[in-house]
Amino acid sequence: MKIAIAGSGALGSRFGYMLYEAGNDVILIDKWKEHIDSIRENGLIVQDGNNRKIVNIPIFYPHEVAEEVDLVFVFTKSMGLQDMLEDIKPILRENTSVISLLNGIGHEDILKEYLPVKNIFMGVTIYTSGLKGSGHVIFEGSGTIEIQNFTPGDREEKKALQLVGMLNQAGFKAYYSEDVTHSIWRKACVNGAMNAICALLDCNLAEFVSTNQAEMIIRHIAKEFVKVAKEKGTILDENDIVEYILQSSRKVGSHYPSMHQDLIQNHRLTEVDFLNGAVARMSKELGFETPYNTFITQLIHAKEQIIMDE
Amino acid sequence: MKIAIAGSGALGSRFGYMLYEAGNDVILIDKWKEHIDSIRENGLIVQDGNNRKIVNIPIFYPHEVAEEVDLVFVFTKSMGLQDMLEDIKPILRENTSVISLLNGIGHEDILKEYLPVKNIFMGVTIYTSGLKGSGHVIFEGSGTIEIQNFTPGDREEKKALQLVGMLNQAGFKAYYSEDVTHSIWRKACVNGAMNAICALLDCNLAEFVSTNQAEMIIRHIAKEFVKVAKEKGTILDENDIVEYILQSSRKVGSHYPSMHQDLIQNHRLTEVDFLNGAVARMSKELGFETPYNTFITQLIHAKEQIIMDE
Repeated sequence: MKIAIAGSGALGSRFGYMLYEAGNDVILIDKWKEHIDSIRENGLIVQDGNNRKIVNIPIFYPHEVAEEVDLVFVFTKSMGLQDMLEDIKPILRENTSVISLLNGIGHEDILKEYLPVKNIFMGVTIYTSGLKGSGHVIFEGSGTIEIQNFTPGDREEKKALQLVGMLNQAGFKAYYSEDVTHSIWRKACVNGAMNAICALLDCNLAEFVSTNQAEMIIRHIAKEFVKVAKEKGTILDENDIVEYILQSSRKVGSHYPSMHQDLIQNHRLTEVDFLNGAVARMSKELGFETPYNTFITQLIHAKEQIIMDE
Repeated sequence: MKIAIAGSGALGSRFGYMLYEAGNDVILIDKWKEHIDSIRENGLIVQDGNNRKIVNIPIFYPHEVAEEVDLVFVFTKSMGLQDMLEDIKPILRENTSVISLLNGIGHEDILKEYLPVKNIFMGVTIYTSGLKGSGHVIFEGSGTIEIQNFTPGDREEKKALQLVGMLNQAGFKAYYSEDVTHSIWRKACVNGAMNAICALLDCNLAEFVSTNQAEMIIRHIAKEFVKVAKEKGTILDENDIVEYILQSSRKVGSHYPSMHQDLIQNHRLTEVDFLNGAVARMSKELGFETPYNTFITQLIHAKEQIIMDE
């Protein structure tokens, strides 16, 4: 099985390494020059707790890859997905499966432009990892992966089950999901209620959730996610999600969500268009308004411009 | 005419000084110990351009004042108005007039709790001044004052005209307004569209207004102000206000609005409840929602708590 990891940052490197170690024919794809140079010269350095290993996995710029592949994992930033797919078009065969474990909603709308829907597989993962500079990936604890075929069908379901088997063989805890769309929406709602607000207020999860306003704000945002998800065929339980967000945010404490890291710490563009922005866009298409998510998206984009212009 | 200045910070000191110099019997009231000590020991230092003058105007803590007065100017922060009125109850006679030139909306609801509506006078001013430390006020350019009686009536209108005359005699450019409520709402809408956003995004007026999102955000906020104002009997022109905000914000450039100064620079509570918060509260009372102003108010209050807890 020839596998391409399209976007080989922290999480992509982790998946690429584990699939490679399990005996698959893996190539990494990325655009970050220092990262590519480092892996080509010194190999990919993998650190898992006290274990450190160096592996020589081929890595390419998107425009360099030519050989067709059987399977693509997309691990770009959400807003980099379209460009990546455009670049790797030549390696997508008629039967190449593409699996997205990206956070947020709306990725399938982009994937559909580049491959037949029967080849799309969607999932959610709570695996994470970090980069200690270019070419050096650090595993962060364990996780799980849920996967499901995007379109119903025996053949598609069989393929999804094969993917699950392959991931388990590579040491992941993966399972087939009967309703991955629910899991994707639920995770997006959790992220959508906290990430952008922590970026806007420049605070961590615990600081925000300890304010008197937090529950009201979270509920406003979640209510709109629930409404749009319902129109899209996914039933979310508002009270359950709000309660989960409040409790988990208190527990994880001083964690700064990724959008805070991107925007405030690293002055980079955010993935807001695949969280709150997706809800705003979808509600507009559906003919109603989601003012809270619309406003958050506008504020984050305004802040991006202010920070980039500095 | 015995006049009390309730809240003798930057602008209160300017009014107190000018009315005192014009021959009125003026007392200052404030709660800031260093300011009071400094004025009692060294007098109030007044700087207007290159002119510097020292005057001995009596200054009191709110609980110290005992003698009844004819006229009170309230120049507290909006959220300090209620406490101040509670403290100075003893000096309010049956006929004591109170005039508010405070920014924002909803002050009349507080004033009504402490005096007969016939004694309330409302106004708007664009005079400003600053404090160079305790006891030292600096005039900042010129301005205008609009005043009107809060309730219709010949007697009330006559009183408002007397106030205008007194202010002009003291060197202000004051005039009687036929519709001061319109001016108050319009100014509040302008402030409400910009101040909180600049505080949230930590930017100045020009930076915010130069983003692609600015016009949409400003319009959302203004639309809700217009709707609530209309229900309250004041007709605002949305397009006119949005255009004014965009043009004036580009012109004044690198100015940080007062809410940014309060919250971000000085880590103090803001007056948001008398701008966006007042619109949110009034719309709720009227039975409809103003999500943009509600959300802004919640975000600002969350940020206040996060900053105060640090």
